[in-house]
Amino acid sequence: MNKNLIVVTSRVRLARNLKSVPFPSMLKGSRDTAEIVLNAARRVCDKLFKYDVQRMDNLTDIDRIALQERHIISKNLIKNTETGAVIIGIGDSEGVSIMINEEDHIRAQCVMRGYGVAECYSEVSQFDDRLASEVEVAFDSRLGYLTACPTNLGTGMRASVMLFLPGLTHTGEITRIIKAINSSGLTVRGAYGEGSSASGYLYQVSNQSTIGMSEVDIIAKVNVVIDKICDAEILARLSWYKTDSIELEDKIMRSFGILKYSRLISSNEFIEHISNVKLGLSLGMLDLDINMLNTLTELCQPANLCHYGGRKLNENERDQLRATQVRDKIDLR
Amino acid sequence: MNKNLIVVTSRVRLARNLKSVPFPSMLKGSRDTAEIVLNAARRVCDKLFKYDVQRMDNLTDIDRIALQERHIISKNLIKNTETGAVIIGIGDSEGVSIMINEEDHIRAQCVMRGYGVAECYSEVSQFDDRLASEVEVAFDSRLGYLTACPTNLGTGMRASVMLFLPGLTHTGEITRIIKAINSSGLTVRGAYGEGSSASGYLYQVSNQSTIGMSEVDIIAKVNVVIDKICDAEILARLSWYKTDSIELEDKIMRSFGILKYSRLISSNEFIEHISNVKLGLSLGMLDLDINMLNTLTELCQPANLCHYGGRKLNENERDQLRATQVRDKIDLR
Repeated sequence: MNKNLIVVTSRVRLARNLKSVPFPSMLKGSRDTAEIVLNAARRVCDKLFKYDVQRMDNLTDIDRIALQERHIISKNLIKNTETGAVIIGIGDSEGVSIMINEEDHIRAQCVMRGYGVAECYSEVSQFDDRLASEVEVAFDSRLGYLTACPTNLGTGMRASVMLFLPGLTHTGEITRIIKAINSSGLTVRGAYGEGSSASGYLYQVSNQSTIGMSEVDIIAKVNVVIDKICDAEILARLSWYKTDSIELEDKIMRSFGILKYSRLISSNEFIEHISNVKLGLSLGMLDLDINMLNTLTELCQPANLCHYGGRKLNENERDQLRATQVRDKIDLR
Repeated sequence: MNKNLIVVTSRVRLARNLKSVPFPSMLKGSRDTAEIVLNAARRVCDKLFKYDVQRMDNLTDIDRIALQERHIISKNLIKNTETGAVIIGIGDSEGVSIMINEEDHIRAQCVMRGYGVAECYSEVSQFDDRLASEVEVAFDSRLGYLTACPTNLGTGMRASVMLFLPGLTHTGEITRIIKAINSSGLTVRGAYGEGSSASGYLYQVSNQSTIGMSEVDIIAKVNVVIDKICDAEILARLSWYKTDSIELEDKIMRSFGILKYSRLISSNEFIEHISNVKLGLSLGMLDLDINMLNTLTELCQPANLCHYGGRKLNENERDQLRATQVRDKIDLR
C-alpha cells in the first residue's frame, strides 16, 4: 500500500527572529518596524522562488480563514491583522509559505502532499541558509535560535505529518500507539491544531522538543516513527478488510454513493464519507485519485467554499455548494 | 403524472363455494372431497387460460411464503396445507390466480400492475360466468353468494388497490383522507394485510361491504375514490417539491446512491429507499422504469430472495443478495 494513502501531508516549519527587531508581541501598531521583517524575508525569497505577498489587513475574513483552513497560515497570524503578512510560493514552490510577524518574526514552512518531511526540510533549509546570510538572526550559542515561546528554542523546527489512520482507529490500537509516540519525544494531536479532537481518522504527529537534537536527527526520528505507524496501519486495514469484508465494502461504497448523489452535505458528513472513500481507495475497491480527494477535502471547508462562491454563504448554501463540488469532482469517468 | 406512479397494483377477487361440498373449514384431512373443488376449478380454467397448479403440500415453506409475498396466495391458504392448492395463470393470464380451499372453496383473483380494477374485474368475471355454467354454486336469492365469512356475503367480491402515497403522508392530509374513505363504505389498511402498519407509503384501499351493491357499482365506486386520491396525491407531491426542492432532491438522490452502491441492505431500509426513488421518478428526477422498480420490490422480499437463492438464507445472506439484486437492476444504463 502506497504511504501516500496514509500520510496526507508532510510539513516542516522553522521559527526565526531578527536580532535587531522586537518580537511581534511587542510590535502592536508599529507598522514600520513590522515592515522591516517583511522586507528582509522578501529579499531572501527574491533569490529563491516566485511568490505572492498577502498582508493580513488587505484580506477579508473569508480569505484569511480560507488560508488557515489550507494550513498556509495559522490562527495566530490572523490575530496580528495589523502587522501580519504571508509570502506564498507559487508555481513549483507552491508548498512554501513564510508567515511574517506571527508569534515569531518569521515562520518559514513547507507543506507537501503525502510522505515527504525530508523534502520539506530541504526546502525550508534553503530559505534558512539564505536568511542567515542576509540578516542577523537572534541566536544564542547555548540555547540555539531564540523564539517567542520557549517550546521552540533550539532548532526552532517543527516537523509534522498528518496521518489518516482508519485501520488503527478501528482496531483500537491507536490508543497504545498514541501513548508510545507521546512518550518518545514526539506528540500526536488532532489534525486541526492543538486542543481540537482528531476527526476523519486524522492525526498529526510532530516533534515535541526542538532542542538537544539537530534538525537532521529530528527529521530522521520523525520518519522512523511514521514508517512504523504506516506499517501498523497497513496491517490494520488489511485485517479489517479480511474480517468484515462485506460490511466494510458496504460502508465504503455507500459513502461513495452518498457523495456522488447528495445535493446537500454538511462538513461533518462529508468528512465521514470522504474518509471511507479514501479507505476504499487504499483497499482497491475504488479507482480514484488520492490527490483529487485531498484537494476536494480542502475545497470543501467552510471558508474555502465561501472563497470559491465569492461571498459569505450561510450553512445551507455551503452544504449545497459542497455537494455540487463533490459531484463535479468525485467521479469524472 | 401517470396514475401508475401512484397505483402500484389493482386487484379483484371473488369468493365462491360449491353447493355440494362442505366449506373448507369442515374439510380438514378429507383430500378426496377437497379434490372435487380443485377439479371443478380446473375444468373451468381449461376453457379460459393456460395455468400451473400448485398443491400446498407439494411446496416448501419458502415457496409458499414467496407466493404469499407476491400476493398470489394468502396466509390462510398456507394454513390449509393438506387441502389447499392454487391455480396460477401463465403467459397472458399471469395475473390470474385461483386459490382452492382457502377460507372459501374458490377465491378467484386477478392482480395487475398499476391502475386497472375494471380490467381485473373483467378477468375474474369471465371465470365466474364459466364456473356458474360448470357447477352449482352456493347462492341464496336474498343473501347472494354464500361465503364462509359473512363479511363476504353478497357479491363475494373484494376490489382493492395498493396506493403509493408519499405526498399525502408528508403533508399529513392522509389522516383526513383515511377518515373520509373509511366512512364511505371503503376501507384503508396497510399494504400487507389486516393489522399490519402501512410501510413504504403504501396503503391498500378496498370495498368494505360486499352486499347491497352490484359488482359493477362497487368497481365504479372504488374507481371514483381512487381518482380523487390520485389527484390529491399529485398536488401533494408537487407542492412538496416546490417547497423543499433541494431537501427533497437530496433525500431522493441519496436513496438512489445507496441502492446503487450498498453491499448489504435490510428489508426496511430497502423499502425506505425504493420509495424515495419511486417518488423521484414521478417528479422527473430519475429516469427509471416503474415496472422494474415494482418487480424489484417483489423480488427483494425475504422468501422471494430465498426462492431465488435456491435455499433458506439467513438475514445477512438475504441482505447481501438483496443488495446484489438491486445493483443488477437499478441502473442498467
